[in-house]
Amino acid sequence: MLRKKNTQAAARLLPMFLVTLALCIPASHWAQQSAGKDPLPSWRDGQAKLAVLDFVRQVNDKSGPKYVKPEERIAAFDDDGTLWTEWPRHINQIQMVFARQRVKQVAKSHPEWKYQQPFKAILDDDDKDLARALTDFWNTMDLLRATHGGMTVDEFGSTVRSFVATVRHPRFKVPYTEVAYSPMVELLDLLRANEFKVFIVTSGGADFLRELSEPVFGVPRECVIGSTPEYEYRETQEGGYLVRKSNVETFNDKSSKAENFQLHVGRRPIFVAGNNDGDLALMGFAAGGKNPFLNVLIRHDDAEREFAYQDNTAKATEMARLRGWTVASMKNDFRVVFAFQQESDLP
Amino acid sequence: MLRKKNTQAAARLLPMFLVTLALCIPASHWAQQSAGKDPLPSWRDGQAKLAVLDFVRQVNDKSGPKYVKPEERIAAFDDDGTLWTEWPRHINQIQMVFARQRVKQVAKSHPEWKYQQPFKAILDDDDKDLARALTDFWNTMDLLRATHGGMTVDEFGSTVRSFVATVRHPRFKVPYTEVAYSPMVELLDLLRANEFKVFIVTSGGADFLRELSEPVFGVPRECVIGSTPEYEYRETQEGGYLVRKSNVETFNDKSSKAENFQLHVGRRPIFVAGNNDGDLALMGFAAGGKNPFLNVLIRHDDAEREFAYQDNTAKATEMARLRGWTVASMKNDFRVVFAFQQESDLP
Repeated sequence: MLRKKNTQAAARLLPMFLVTLALCIPASHWAQQSAGKDPLPSWRDGQAKLAVLDFVRQVNDKSGPKYVKPEERIAAFDDDGTLWTEWPRHINQIQMVFARQRVKQVAKSHPEWKYQQPFKAILDDDDKDLARALTDFWNTMDLLRATHGGMTVDEFGSTVRSFVATVRHPRFKVPYTEVAYSPMVELLDLLRANEFKVFIVTSGGADFLRELSEPVFGVPRECVIGSTPEYEYRETQEGGYLVRKSNVETFNDKSSKAENFQLHVGRRPIFVAGNNDGDLALMGFAAGGKNPFLNVLIRHDDAEREFAYQDNTAKATEMARLRGWTVASMKNDFRVVFAFQQESDLP
Repeated sequence: MLRKKNTQAAARLLPMFLVTLALCIPASHWAQQSAGKDPLPSWRDGQAKLAVLDFVRQVNDKSGPKYVKPEERIAAFDDDGTLWTEWPRHINQIQMVFARQRVKQVAKSHPEWKYQQPFKAILDDDDKDLARALTDFWNTMDLLRATHGGMTVDEFGSTVRSFVATVRHPRFKVPYTEVAYSPMVELLDLLRANEFKVFIVTSGGADFLRELSEPVFGVPRECVIGSTPEYEYRETQEGGYLVRKSNVETFNDKSSKAENFQLHVGRRPIFVAGNNDGDLALMGFAAGGKNPFLNVLIRHDDAEREFAYQDNTAKATEMARLRGWTVASMKNDFRVVFAFQQESDLP
């Protein structure tokens, strides 16, 4: 009897319970659930995925304490090592591959390069020597000046496009347009679907990445913030054009990433993804605002599917631990790394 | 008989004629016509209005020779004297009014200002002396350094917001948020409705205008390109913040407007509106591209409803004449100048 009575009471209460349940789950979550589609299928269930989904749900929840107005939903993503593979840095990182190719193309007019680093190492195809030479910041600047400047913005763009059309990743043997991390591309889509405005904040060249940002990441040229040369405006009878001078005007790394974010965007980001100490200022900038924020640090710990390395990550790792920022392990949190890898191949 | 036969033939041909007519008018134009709404009601019919409507129609016409892909529909607007009133420059221009108020607020800690221009002229309320002092570029820089720097980005923003909330235009006696030109606000709306991305490219301070660009012009903070100080990133236990240092890092005028457009946007504009020689490089940059473009030069020739002046316009006027760029006369092409002026008051 007791049993039956309880059952009847439960039956009476059930509709009310369902209504209450419905009211507790925000509409966007409902939409997601009812569509029955996981917006991050390349992520394994775990703390990182949960943190991301939770954050997106909360900034959307108008009645909750973490609601953020759409115009303030600004996301900043590092690219190299965060959105796509860059390792080993002086060997496989796309802009370095471009610079090395450029050096070989124009070496004939620079006989002195046989005796000058980092050019000598590039001409000798000596990767170890190159890596050593580029530990000197000024050698890197010399390489950028020699290969990225002294031409018009239009010429530079077409040079990069020609390069991208033919180059293959040395290890993965696919075009560089395919070495984006699938989980991160899904994350960009998820944020945009939730009214985030996404910027790429790279220490690489802005004009270089602008030739790739839209097709690979869906990020338009005007949302790329990066290192830049000095530009010089010139005119002919027909109209004006811009020259990329040979100096590096802005090297967009570390505190410059936060400073240039203000220059370009004029708002704090509330979502930052990066993979090393170079992204720490941008994460700190997000953390210092009044809005809720999420910082995600990508950990490269998957030698099998990508690479395992910890260079230049000591401070970022410590800060993430101290402040409870989210760490995404490529080995554990990424179900798929690259779209070209078959899931059946996965460990 | 002949007459009747012709009429019958015409009747038979009429449906075919109508179909042909329909096919010749692009869908967007049809939509506009059928909605029966003039998208630029504050413009008088004339060459300037026609040039704008024609350009917008043509970049939308996929089958026409002037079609432009939506992602390349980039518009750049000067603000002072183009989107809203700035005259007389050192007296009524909003940022100058702000600077003058700031000087008076902090003058107690600067006893030396009594003897230094341009501060002396401001403290003496001597507009003629101030105008004279500010013909020296470095006096203007000194004024900006003293009033816009040495505080955090957040502090600066709230200082500007407090100023904007209370200040009235000296001549028109309305808040500065109401001295936008109605025809230009309509033009911004028309472009956005046709998938243009609109940027404001000001020689004024980017962070200053960012407090006004969204509410007054519907242009988000991240689409404002302007003069900027050096920023410095600093950190506390809680997170990071940015300080506006006292130097002027970029003064965004003339060729810098084109150079900084590349820095921020990475594309050429195809629509530029300006009002003086400071906007000429940006117009030349648009003219030098492969896409069709429209440059519009606003002429201040309406002393009754606004101001009549030609300072700093000689080159721009000559270039517009030589290259056939569009000139919009405020007197002749603007049916309404400000929303607060009654149309019945108009000349």
